[in-house]
Amino acid sequence: MKNAMIDIQLSHRTIREFEPEQIHEETITTLMEVARRTATSNGMQSTSIIRITDPIVKRQIADICKQEYVFRAPVLFVFVADCYRNMRIARDKGCLEESAGDMDRFFQAVTDTCLAAQNVVNAAESLGLGALYLGSILNDAQNLIKVLKLPELTFPIVGLGLGTPNQNPALKPRLGNKFKVFENSYYCFDNYLESIKDYDEEMQTYYDLRNVNQRVDSFSNQIIAKLTTASPVRQDILNVIRSQGFILKLKEMQDIIG
Amino acid sequence: MKNAMIDIQLSHRTIREFEPEQIHEETITTLMEVARRTATSNGMQSTSIIRITDPIVKRQIADICKQEYVFRAPVLFVFVADCYRNMRIARDKGCLEESAGDMDRFFQAVTDTCLAAQNVVNAAESLGLGALYLGSILNDAQNLIKVLKLPELTFPIVGLGLGTPNQNPALKPRLGNKFKVFENSYYCFDNYLESIKDYDEEMQTYYDLRNVNQRVDSFSNQIIAKLTTASPVRQDILNVIRSQGFILKLKEMQDIIG
Repeated sequence: MKNAMIDIQLSHRTIREFEPEQIHEETITTLMEVARRTATSNGMQSTSIIRITDPIVKRQIADICKQEYVFRAPVLFVFVADCYRNMRIARDKGCLEESAGDMDRFFQAVTDTCLAAQNVVNAAESLGLGALYLGSILNDAQNLIKVLKLPELTFPIVGLGLGTPNQNPALKPRLGNKFKVFENSYYCFDNYLESIKDYDEEMQTYYDLRNVNQRVDSFSNQIIAKLTTASPVRQDILNVIRSQGFILKLKEMQDIIG
Repeated sequence: MKNAMIDIQLSHRTIREFEPEQIHEETITTLMEVARRTATSNGMQSTSIIRITDPIVKRQIADICKQEYVFRAPVLFVFVADCYRNMRIARDKGCLEESAGDMDRFFQAVTDTCLAAQNVVNAAESLGLGALYLGSILNDAQNLIKVLKLPELTFPIVGLGLGTPNQNPALKPRLGNKFKVFENSYYCFDNYLESIKDYDEEMQTYYDLRNVNQRVDSFSNQIIAKLTTASPVRQDILNVIRSQGFILKLKEMQDIIG
Protein backbone atom coordinates (compact mmCIF):
# COMPACT_ATOMS: atom_id res chain seq x y z
CA MET A 1 0.00 0.00 0.00
CA LYS A 2 1.75 3.10 -1.21
CA ASN A 3 0.68 6.37 -2.77
CA ALA A 4 2.20 9.67 -3.87
CA MET A 5 2.36 11.03 -0.31
CA ILE A 6 4.02 7.93 1.07
CA ASP A 7 6.52 7.95 -1.81
CA ILE A 8 7.47 11.46 -0.72
CA GLN A 9 7.75 10.40 2.92
CA LEU A 10 9.92 7.42 2.03
CA SER A 11 12.32 9.64 0.14
CA HIS A 12 12.65 12.32 2.83
CA ARG A 13 16.05 13.94 2.96
CA THR A 14 17.29 17.02 4.75
CA ILE A 15 17.60 19.90 2.29
CA ARG A 16 20.22 22.44 3.29
CA GLU A 17 20.49 24.56 0.16
CA PHE A 18 17.53 26.21 -1.52
CA GLU A 19 16.78 28.25 -4.63
CA PRO A 20 16.82 31.93 -3.67
CA GLU A 21 13.19 32.44 -4.73
CA GLN A 22 10.73 33.25 -1.98
CA ILE A 23 7.76 31.04 -1.21
CA HIS A 24 4.32 32.47 -2.01
CA GLU A 25 2.54 33.97 0.99
CA GLU A 26 -0.47 31.87 0.11
CA THR A 27 1.64 28.75 0.61
CA ILE A 28 2.90 29.99 3.98
CA THR A 29 -0.70 30.66 5.03
CA THR A 30 -1.69 27.13 4.00
CA LEU A 31 1.23 25.61 5.93
CA MET A 32 0.25 27.57 9.04
CA GLU A 33 -3.32 26.35 8.63
CA VAL A 34 -1.97 22.81 8.56
CA ALA A 35 -0.13 23.54 11.81
CA ARG A 36 -3.34 24.92 13.31
CA ARG A 37 -5.30 21.77 12.43
CA THR A 38 -2.67 19.38 13.86
CA ALA A 39 -3.73 17.01 16.61
CA THR A 40 -3.23 18.52 20.06
CA SER A 41 -2.96 16.95 23.53
CA ASN A 42 -6.09 17.45 25.58
CA GLY A 43 -7.32 20.09 23.13
CA MET A 44 -4.93 22.57 24.75
CA GLN A 45 -3.31 23.77 21.48
CA SER A 46 -0.08 24.44 23.36
CA THR A 47 2.10 25.48 20.49
CA SER A 48 3.11 28.69 18.76
CA ILE A 49 5.22 29.40 15.71
CA ILE A 50 7.59 32.30 15.18
CA ARG A 51 8.26 33.09 11.56
CA ILE A 52 11.63 34.74 11.06
CA THR A 53 11.65 37.38 8.34
CA ASP A 54 14.04 39.95 9.83
CA PRO A 55 17.56 39.28 8.49
CA ILE A 56 19.07 40.42 11.80
CA VAL A 57 17.06 37.83 13.72
CA LYS A 58 17.82 35.24 11.06
CA ARG A 59 21.52 35.96 11.45
CA GLN A 60 21.27 35.56 15.23
CA ILE A 61 19.56 32.20 14.80
CA ALA A 62 22.09 31.01 12.21
CA ASP A 63 24.80 31.96 14.71
CA ILE A 64 23.12 29.97 17.47
CA CYS A 65 22.75 27.03 15.09
CA LYS A 66 26.36 27.47 13.96
CA GLN A 67 25.09 26.67 10.48
CA GLU A 68 25.59 29.35 7.84
CA TYR A 69 22.99 27.76 5.54
CA VAL A 70 20.27 28.56 8.09
CA PHE A 71 20.65 32.22 7.11
CA ARG A 72 20.02 31.30 3.47
CA ALA A 73 16.79 29.34 4.03
CA PRO A 74 14.02 31.31 2.24
CA VAL A 75 11.51 30.53 5.00
CA LEU A 76 12.48 30.04 8.61
CA PHE A 77 10.24 29.07 11.51
CA VAL A 78 10.83 28.35 15.18
CA PHE A 79 8.27 26.02 16.76
CA VAL A 80 7.63 26.87 20.39
CA ALA A 81 6.03 24.82 23.16
CA ASP A 82 3.53 27.28 24.61
CA CYS A 83 1.83 26.99 27.99
CA TYR A 84 1.83 30.78 28.35
CA ARG A 85 -1.31 31.42 26.32
CA ASN A 86 -3.50 29.10 28.37
CA MET A 87 -2.02 30.40 31.61
CA ARG A 88 -3.00 33.91 30.50
CA ILE A 89 -6.52 32.81 29.56
CA ALA A 90 -6.88 31.21 32.99
CA ARG A 91 -5.49 34.28 34.73
CA ASP A 92 -7.82 36.57 32.78
CA LYS A 93 -10.68 34.45 34.10
CA GLY A 94 -9.44 35.06 37.63
CA CYS A 95 -8.00 31.60 38.02
CA LEU A 96 -4.35 31.28 38.96
CA GLU A 97 -3.46 27.66 38.48
CA GLU A 98 0.18 26.79 38.80
CA SER A 99 -0.52 23.54 36.95
CA ALA A 100 -0.43 25.62 33.74
CA GLY A 101 3.34 25.26 33.93
CA ASP A 102 3.72 21.80 35.40
CA MET A 103 5.81 19.15 33.68
CA ASP A 104 2.74 17.31 32.41
CA ARG A 105 1.57 20.42 30.57
CA PHE A 106 5.12 21.08 29.43
CA PHE A 107 5.44 17.67 27.82
CA GLN A 108 2.00 17.98 26.24
CA ALA A 109 3.19 21.25 24.74
CA VAL A 110 6.42 19.67 23.49
CA THR A 111 4.42 16.90 21.82
CA ASP A 112 1.93 19.36 20.28
CA THR A 113 4.82 21.38 18.93
CA CYS A 114 6.65 18.47 17.31
CA LEU A 115 3.47 17.10 15.76
CA ALA A 116 2.73 20.51 14.25
CA ALA A 117 6.27 20.77 12.88
CA GLN A 118 6.11 17.38 11.17
CA ASN A 119 2.64 18.10 9.83
CA VAL A 120 4.00 21.28 8.24
CA VAL A 121 6.97 19.36 6.82
CA ASN A 122 4.67 16.79 5.24
CA ALA A 123 2.51 19.54 3.73
CA ALA A 124 5.58 21.40 2.46
CA GLU A 125 7.11 18.28 0.94
CA SER A 126 3.79 17.41 -0.70
CA LEU A 127 4.10 20.79 -2.46
CA GLY A 128 7.60 19.97 -3.68
CA LEU A 129 9.40 22.05 -1.07
CA GLY A 130 12.43 20.85 0.83
CA ALA A 131 12.73 20.93 4.63
CA LEU A 132 15.56 21.52 7.06
CA TYR A 133 14.91 20.69 10.71
CA LEU A 134 17.05 22.64 13.14
CA GLY A 135 17.60 20.94 16.47
CA SER A 136 20.64 23.20 16.58
CA ILE A 137 18.48 26.12 17.81
CA LEU A 138 18.96 24.47 21.20
CA ASN A 139 22.73 25.04 21.07
CA ASP A 140 21.87 28.08 23.16
CA ALA A 141 18.22 27.96 24.22
CA GLN A 142 18.67 30.84 26.67
CA ASN A 143 19.91 33.16 23.97
CA LEU A 144 17.19 32.11 21.52
CA ILE A 145 14.54 32.82 24.14
CA LYS A 146 15.96 36.33 24.43
CA VAL A 147 16.17 36.84 20.65
CA LEU A 148 12.55 35.73 20.11
CA LYS A 149 11.29 37.47 23.27
CA LEU A 150 9.67 34.27 24.46
CA PRO A 151 7.61 34.84 27.61
CA GLU A 152 7.45 32.59 30.66
CA LEU A 153 5.96 29.13 30.14
CA THR A 154 7.18 28.94 26.56
CA PHE A 155 10.17 27.03 25.23
CA PRO A 156 11.67 26.69 21.73
CA ILE A 157 11.67 23.10 20.48
CA VAL A 158 12.74 22.96 16.87
CA GLY A 159 13.55 25.25 13.95
CA LEU A 160 12.43 24.63 10.40
CA GLY A 161 13.81 25.96 7.14
CA LEU A 162 11.77 25.58 3.96
CA GLY A 163 12.30 26.39 0.32
CA THR A 164 12.65 25.02 -3.18
CA PRO A 165 15.52 22.51 -3.05
CA ASN A 166 18.58 23.22 -5.11
CA GLN A 167 20.32 20.04 -4.10
CA ASN A 168 19.40 16.39 -4.39
CA PRO A 169 21.11 14.48 -1.57
CA ALA A 170 21.24 10.68 -1.50
CA LEU A 171 18.91 8.87 0.84
CA LYS A 172 20.77 8.43 4.12
CA PRO A 173 21.01 4.82 5.30
CA ARG A 174 18.84 4.08 8.31
CA LEU A 175 18.98 1.33 10.87
CA GLY A 176 16.53 -1.48 10.06
CA ASN A 177 13.18 -1.78 11.77
CA LYS A 178 14.12 -5.02 13.51
CA PHE A 179 15.99 -2.73 15.90
CA LYS A 180 13.18 -0.22 16.16
CA VAL A 181 9.79 -1.89 15.93
CA PHE A 182 8.81 -4.49 18.50
CA GLU A 183 5.69 -6.44 19.37
CA ASN A 184 4.04 -6.07 22.79
CA SER A 185 7.28 -5.40 24.64
CA TYR A 186 10.73 -3.93 24.06
CA TYR A 187 13.30 -6.37 22.71
CA CYS A 188 16.93 -6.01 23.82
CA PHE A 189 19.61 -7.51 21.58
CA ASP A 190 22.53 -9.39 23.13
CA ASN A 191 25.22 -7.62 21.16
CA TYR A 192 24.28 -4.46 19.35
CA LEU A 193 27.63 -3.86 17.70
CA GLU A 194 27.56 -7.31 16.10
CA SER A 195 23.90 -6.99 15.15
CA ILE A 196 24.29 -3.64 13.37
CA LYS A 197 27.42 -4.71 11.48
CA ASP A 198 25.76 -4.57 8.05
CA TYR A 199 24.32 -1.17 8.81
CA ASP A 200 27.71 0.09 9.98
CA GLU A 201 29.08 -0.93 6.58
CA GLU A 202 26.16 0.46 4.61
CA MET A 203 26.57 3.85 6.31
CA GLN A 204 30.11 4.08 4.94
CA THR A 205 28.79 4.02 1.37
CA TYR A 206 26.98 7.32 2.03
CA TYR A 207 28.41 10.71 1.14
CA ASP A 208 27.19 13.73 3.05
CA LEU A 209 26.80 16.75 0.76
CA ARG A 210 28.34 18.88 3.50
CA ASN A 211 31.59 17.06 2.86
CA VAL A 212 31.42 15.42 -0.55
CA ASN A 213 35.05 14.33 -0.64
CA GLN A 214 34.77 12.00 2.28
CA ARG A 215 32.57 9.02 3.08
CA VAL A 216 30.80 9.26 6.40
CA ASP A 217 31.94 7.14 9.30
CA SER A 218 30.17 3.98 10.43
CA PHE A 219 27.05 4.50 12.54
CA SER A 220 28.67 3.13 15.70
CA ASN A 221 31.64 5.47 15.25
CA GLN A 222 29.24 8.37 14.74
CA ILE A 223 27.50 7.47 18.00
CA ILE A 224 30.79 7.41 19.89
CA ALA A 225 31.87 10.71 18.34
CA LYS A 226 28.61 12.38 19.31
CA LEU A 227 28.41 10.98 22.82
CA THR A 228 31.99 12.00 23.61
CA THR A 229 31.49 15.59 22.47
CA ALA A 230 28.39 16.48 24.48
CA SER A 231 27.74 20.20 24.84
CA PRO A 232 27.54 21.34 28.48
CA VAL A 233 25.27 24.23 27.41
CA ARG A 234 22.86 21.87 25.66
CA GLN A 235 22.95 19.43 28.57
CA ASP A 236 21.79 22.34 30.72
CA ILE A 237 18.40 22.42 28.97
CA LEU A 238 16.39 21.53 32.08
CA ASN A 239 17.70 24.59 33.90
CA VAL A 240 16.60 26.81 31.03
CA ILE A 241 13.18 25.15 31.03
CA ARG A 242 13.00 25.86 34.74
CA SER A 243 14.08 29.47 34.27
CA GLN A 244 11.12 29.85 31.88
CA GLY A 245 8.85 29.21 34.86
CA PHE A 246 8.07 25.55 34.40
CA ILE A 247 7.71 23.70 37.66
CA LEU A 248 10.17 20.87 38.11
CA LYS A 249 8.91 18.80 40.99
CA LEU A 250 11.60 16.36 41.94
CA LYS A 251 11.81 13.82 44.71
CA GLU A 252 14.97 12.86 46.52
CA MET A 253 16.73 16.10 45.67
CA GLN A 254 19.64 15.24 47.88
CA ASP A 255 20.39 12.19 45.73
CA ILE A 256 20.60 14.38 42.67
CA ILE A 257 22.71 17.05 44.31
CA GLY A 258 24.91 14.12 45.26
CA MET B 1 -1.68 26.22 -2.80
CA LYS B 2 -3.47 23.08 -1.75
CA ASN B 3 -3.47 19.46 -2.83
CA ALA B 4 -5.04 16.14 -1.82
CA MET B 5 -2.61 15.65 1.06
CA ILE B 6 -3.17 19.11 2.47
CA ASP B 7 -6.94 18.67 2.17
CA ILE B 8 -6.57 15.59 4.35
CA GLN B 9 -4.41 17.47 6.85
CA LEU B 10 -6.86 20.36 7.03
CA SER B 11 -9.69 17.98 7.83
CA HIS B 12 -7.87 16.03 10.54
CA ARG B 13 -10.12 14.80 13.31
CA THR B 14 -9.52 12.32 16.10
CA ILE B 15 -11.17 9.01 15.24
CA ARG B 16 -12.17 7.00 18.29
CA GLU B 17 -14.30 4.25 16.77
CA PHE B 18 -13.15 2.00 13.95
CA GLU B 19 -14.53 -0.73 11.73
CA PRO B 20 -13.58 -4.07 13.27
CA GLU B 21 -11.59 -5.15 10.18
CA GLN B 22 -7.87 -5.53 10.61
CA ILE B 23 -5.37 -3.47 8.63
CA HIS B 24 -3.29 -5.35 6.05
CA GLU B 25 0.17 -6.30 7.27
CA GLU B 26 1.59 -4.73 4.13
CA THR B 27 0.11 -1.40 5.23
CA ILE B 28 1.60 -1.74 8.70
CA THR B 29 4.99 -2.46 7.14
CA THR B 30 4.70 0.63 4.97
CA LEU B 31 3.75 2.80 7.94
CA MET B 32 6.74 1.51 9.89
CA GLU B 33 8.96 2.28 6.90
CA VAL B 34 7.61 5.83 6.98
CA ALA B 35 8.55 6.01 10.66
CA ARG B 36 12.03 4.71 9.84
CA ARG B 37 12.56 7.40 7.19
CA THR B 38 11.42 10.28 9.43
CA ALA B 39 13.85 13.12 10.10
CA THR B 40 15.97 12.45 13.19
CA SER B 41 17.98 14.78 15.44
CA ASN B 42 21.70 14.47 14.86
CA GLY B 43 21.17 11.24 12.91
CA MET B 44 20.74 9.43 16.21
CA GLN B 45 17.46 7.68 15.30
CA SER B 46 16.44 7.75 18.96
CA THR B 47 12.99 6.28 18.68
CA SER B 48 11.38 2.87 18.87
CA ILE B 49 7.82 1.68 18.34
CA ILE B 50 6.00 -1.04 20.23
CA ARG B 51 3.11 -2.55 18.35
CA ILE B 52 0.48 -3.98 20.64
CA THR B 53 -1.15 -7.15 19.34
CA ASP B 54 -1.63 -9.09 22.58
CA PRO B 55 -5.17 -8.43 23.91
CA ILE B 56 -3.92 -8.65 27.48
CA VAL B 57 -1.38 -5.87 26.89
CA LYS B 58 -3.99 -3.90 24.96
CA ARG B 59 -6.36 -4.18 27.91
CA GLN B 60 -3.64 -2.97 30.29
CA ILE B 61 -3.00 0.04 28.07
CA ALA B 62 -6.70 0.84 27.72
CA ASP B 63 -6.90 0.73 31.52
CA ILE B 64 -3.96 3.12 31.86
CA CYS B 65 -5.59 5.41 29.29
CA LYS B 66 -8.95 5.04 31.05
CA GLN B 67 -10.45 4.93 27.57
CA GLU B 68 -12.36 1.80 26.67
CA TYR B 69 -12.17 2.59 22.95
CA VAL B 70 -8.39 2.15 23.05
CA PHE B 71 -9.01 -1.59 23.45
CA ARG B 72 -11.11 -1.57 20.28
CA ALA B 73 -8.54 0.16 18.03
CA PRO B 74 -7.57 -2.41 15.34
CA VAL B 75 -3.94 -1.26 15.39
CA LEU B 76 -2.22 0.12 18.46
CA PHE B 77 1.29 1.51 18.74
CA VAL B 78 3.28 3.10 21.54
CA PHE B 79 6.01 5.47 20.38
CA VAL B 80 9.03 5.41 22.67
CA ALA B 81 11.89 7.88 23.07
CA ASP B 82 14.91 5.59 22.92
CA CYS B 83 18.42 6.46 24.07
CA TYR B 84 19.00 2.88 25.18
CA ARG B 85 19.98 1.52 21.76
CA ASN B 86 22.75 4.04 21.19
CA MET B 87 23.98 3.64 24.74
CA ARG B 88 24.25 -0.12 24.10
CA ILE B 89 26.09 0.42 20.81
CA ALA B 90 28.54 2.72 22.61
CA ARG B 91 28.96 0.25 25.45
CA ASP B 92 29.56 -2.63 23.03
CA LYS B 93 32.35 -0.53 21.53
CA GLY B 94 33.91 -0.24 24.98
CA CYS B 95 32.79 3.33 25.46
CA LEU B 96 30.74 4.19 28.51
CA GLU B 97 29.46 7.69 27.98
CA GLU B 98 26.94 8.96 30.48
CA SER B 99 25.92 11.62 27.96
CA ALA B 100 23.86 8.89 26.25
CA GLY B 101 21.21 9.63 28.86
CA ASP B 102 21.62 13.36 29.36
CA MET B 103 18.69 15.72 28.99
CA ASP B 104 19.90 16.94 25.60
CA ARG B 105 19.77 13.40 24.21
CA PHE B 106 16.48 12.82 25.98
CA PHE B 107 14.84 15.82 24.30
CA GLN B 108 16.30 14.84 20.94
CA ALA B 109 14.70 11.43 21.43
CA VAL B 110 11.36 12.98 22.40
CA THR B 111 11.44 15.11 19.25
CA ASP B 112 12.42 12.16 17.03
CA THR B 113 9.58 10.16 18.50
CA CYS B 114 6.89 12.78 17.97
CA LEU B 115 8.03 13.48 14.41
CA ALA B 116 7.84 9.76 13.62
CA ALA B 117 4.35 9.52 15.11
CA GLN B 118 3.00 12.42 13.06
CA ASN B 119 4.68 11.11 9.92
CA VAL B 120 2.91 7.78 10.45
CA VAL B 121 -0.40 9.57 11.07
CA ASN B 122 -0.06 11.48 7.81
CA ALA B 123 0.76 8.31 5.91
CA ALA B 124 -2.16 6.49 7.52
CA GLU B 125 -4.60 9.30 6.80
CA SER B 126 -3.36 9.49 3.20
CA LEU B 127 -4.48 5.84 2.94
CA GLY B 128 -7.94 6.67 4.29
CA LEU B 129 -7.28 5.40 7.80
CA GLY B 130 -8.30 7.28 10.94
CA ALA B 131 -5.93 8.07 13.79
CA LEU B 132 -6.29 8.32 17.55
CA TYR B 133 -3.41 9.89 19.47
CA LEU B 134 -3.14 8.74 23.06
CA GLY B 135 -1.44 11.18 25.38
CA SER B 136 -3.38 9.29 28.03
CA ILE B 137 -0.72 6.54 28.07
CA LEU B 138 1.10 8.94 30.41
CA ASN B 139 -1.68 8.69 33.01
CA ASP B 140 0.64 6.13 34.56
CA ALA B 141 4.01 6.17 32.80
CA GLN B 142 5.61 3.96 35.45
CA ASN B 143 3.06 1.22 34.93
CA LEU B 144 3.29 1.45 31.14
CA ILE B 145 7.07 1.10 31.33
CA LYS B 146 6.54 -2.12 33.27
CA VAL B 147 3.86 -3.42 30.89
CA LEU B 148 6.05 -2.81 27.81
CA LYS B 149 9.26 -3.90 29.55
CA LEU B 150 10.96 -0.67 28.56
CA PRO B 151 14.66 -0.71 29.49
CA GLU B 152 16.64 2.14 31.01
CA LEU B 153 17.06 5.26 28.86
CA THR B 154 13.72 4.75 27.14
CA PHE B 155 10.47 6.56 27.82
CA PRO B 156 6.97 6.25 26.32
CA ILE B 157 5.79 9.45 24.63
CA VAL B 158 2.56 8.87 22.80
CA GLY B 159 0.19 6.06 21.84
CA LEU B 160 -1.47 5.77 18.45
CA GLY B 161 -4.56 3.85 17.42
CA LEU B 162 -5.28 3.33 13.72
CA GLY B 163 -8.06 1.76 11.71
CA THR B 164 -10.81 2.34 9.21
CA PRO B 165 -13.04 5.07 10.68
CA ASN B 166 -16.62 4.20 11.49
CA GLN B 167 -17.47 7.68 12.66
CA ASN B 168 -17.32 11.08 11.02
CA PRO B 169 -16.84 13.71 13.71
CA ALA B 170 -17.21 17.41 13.00
CA LEU B 171 -14.08 19.49 12.63
CA LYS B 172 -13.24 20.83 16.09
CA PRO B 173 -12.95 24.61 16.27
CA ARG B 174 -9.39 25.80 16.74
CA LEU B 175 -8.01 29.07 18.00
CA GLY B 176 -7.03 31.37 15.13
CA ASN B 177 -3.46 31.77 13.98
CA LYS B 178 -3.25 35.38 15.10
CA PHE B 179 -2.78 33.87 18.58
CA LYS B 180 -0.33 31.24 17.40
CA VAL B 181 1.83 32.50 14.56
CA PHE B 182 4.06 35.51 15.10
CA GLU B 183 6.74 37.33 13.16
CA ASN B 184 10.29 37.59 14.52
CA SER B 185 9.26 37.65 18.16
CA TYR B 186 6.48 36.42 20.42
CA TYR B 187 3.47 38.69 20.67
CA CYS B 188 1.63 38.93 24.00
CA PHE B 189 -1.99 40.11 23.93
CA ASP B 190 -3.24 42.54 26.57
CA ASN B 191 -6.37 40.62 27.41
CA TYR B 192 -6.64 37.05 26.23
CA LEU B 193 -10.13 36.41 27.46
CA GLU B 194 -11.48 39.38 25.54
CA SER B 195 -9.43 38.54 22.46
CA ILE B 196 -10.61 34.93 22.23
CA LYS B 197 -14.27 35.81 22.81
CA ASP B 198 -15.39 34.76 19.31
CA TYR B 199 -13.52 31.50 19.63
CA ASP B 200 -15.07 30.84 23.03
CA GLU B 201 -18.47 31.19 21.36
CA GLU B 202 -17.56 29.14 18.32
CA MET B 203 -16.40 26.28 20.54
CA GLN B 204 -19.87 26.06 22.05
CA THR B 205 -21.34 25.20 18.65
CA TYR B 206 -19.28 21.99 18.62
CA TYR B 207 -20.65 18.62 19.74
CA ASP B 208 -18.17 16.01 20.91
CA LEU B 209 -19.19 12.54 19.72
CA ARG B 210 -18.25 11.22 23.16
CA ASN B 211 -21.23 13.13 24.52
CA VAL B 212 -23.55 13.96 21.64
CA ASN B 213 -26.36 15.31 23.79
CA GLN B 214 -24.37 18.21 25.14
CA ARG B 215 -22.50 21.06 23.53
CA VAL B 216 -18.92 21.42 24.70
CA ASP B 217 -17.97 24.23 27.01
CA SER B 218 -16.20 27.40 25.89
CA PHE B 219 -12.44 27.09 25.35
CA SER B 220 -11.61 29.27 28.35
CA ASN B 221 -13.87 27.16 30.58
CA GLN B 222 -12.20 24.02 29.25
CA ILE B 223 -8.81 25.47 30.15
CA ILE B 224 -9.92 26.24 33.69
CA ALA B 225 -11.48 22.79 34.08
CA LYS B 226 -8.28 21.09 32.91
CA LEU B 227 -5.88 23.24 34.92
CA THR B 228 -7.86 22.74 38.14
CA THR B 229 -7.95 18.96 37.80
CA ALA B 230 -4.24 18.28 37.29
CA SER B 231 -3.21 14.68 37.93
CA PRO B 232 -0.49 14.37 40.60
CA VAL B 233 0.71 11.13 38.96
CA ARG B 234 1.05 12.81 35.58
CA GLN B 235 2.74 15.83 37.12
CA ASP B 236 5.32 13.40 38.49
CA ILE B 237 6.61 12.64 34.98
CA LEU B 238 10.11 14.01 35.60
CA ASN B 239 10.66 11.56 38.45
CA VAL B 240 9.72 8.66 36.19
CA ILE B 241 12.06 9.98 33.51
CA ARG B 242 14.77 10.09 36.13
CA SER B 243 13.99 6.59 37.34
CA GLN B 244 14.54 5.42 33.74
CA GLY B 245 18.17 6.49 34.14
CA PHE B 246 18.09 9.87 32.46
CA ILE B 247 20.41 12.38 34.07
CA LEU B 248 18.68 15.45 35.43
CA LYS B 249 21.36 17.99 36.12
CA LEU B 250 19.81 20.83 38.07
CA LYS B 251 21.28 23.93 39.58
CA GLU B 252 20.12 25.59 42.78
CA MET B 253 18.50 22.47 44.14
CA GLN B 254 17.73 24.09 47.43
CA ASP B 255 15.48 26.61 45.69
CA ILE B 256 13.48 23.78 44.19
CA ILE B 257 13.25 21.83 47.41
CA GLY B 258 11.95 25.09 48.83
